[in-house]
Amino acid sequence: MLKMIERKSADPRNGSLCVAEAASESVPFDINRVYYIYGVQRGVQRGAHAHKTLKQVLICVHGRIEISLDDGRGNVQTTVLNEPSDGLYVGPGMWRTMKWLQDDSVLLVLASEHYNEADYIRDYDEFIEYGKRRS
Amino acid sequence: MLKMIERKSADPRNGSLCVAEAASESVPFDINRVYYIYGVQRGVQRGAHAHKTLKQVLICVHGRIEISLDDGRGNVQTTVLNEPSDGLYVGPGMWRTMKWLQDDSVLLVLASEHYNEADYIRDYDEFIEYGKRRS
Repeated sequence: MLKMIERKSADPRNGSLCVAEAASESVPFDINRVYYIYGVQRGVQRGAHAHKTLKQVLICVHGRIEISLDDGRGNVQTTVLNEPSDGLYVGPGMWRTMKWLQDDSVLLVLASEHYNEADYIRDYDEFIEYGKRRS
Repeated sequence: MLKMIERKSADPRNGSLCVAEAASESVPFDINRVYYIYGVQRGVQRGAHAHKTLKQVLICVHGRIEISLDDGRGNVQTTVLNEPSDGLYVGPGMWRTMKWLQDDSVLLVLASEHYNEADYIRDYDEFIEYGKRRS
């Protein structure tokens, strides 16, 4: 689900400023963790995991990155992020992969919880089984 | 004050991931607001304000940006941010200016509070007066 991050622009030379307030419409959770991925070559895929409870908003602040979200029930949604004012909400139970479409694209992720290894599902078969147990 | 943001690197092709946990050594406050500035042409300056209470960590996640911090007492500290794992802590009462050294550099800011216009000081003379009243 794409959410608009509030964007403020003035003189085009001066660029744009996007604001993501915690616990707002654009970021519907408290922000306990922020991470960003950079220095990735075009064509590289990252991700390939799911979370049991974590909520995140993914933002491509530079370049172009393709995000695939698999709900484990046969539904795969693919979105190209190439506009810094777009935020992609990723809820729990989604297997995500990110493919870099342009060198040096930067992915910014706002996350609802501190790091917790027990919240990760890193094996796809286990992810499918986890989804069956939940439904 | 430069703070190291936790950095995880694997295969160089796969880039690096930096993590900023709220209320940690690298980000010594809760993160209530995140903003980022992009699409700025080289040579442009932004900022030129201070905050009465807001705490921030500034990170250049792409490119090169020069940050000047003026404490209003004759001390100006200038830092070039060009490494995404560097976070520059900016406490209250610092007049900041940011100069873009490279087109399309992206500045990410983690902030301790939600937006509050009353916390801004946008006039330099007023900033100097405010500093005198505080000391």
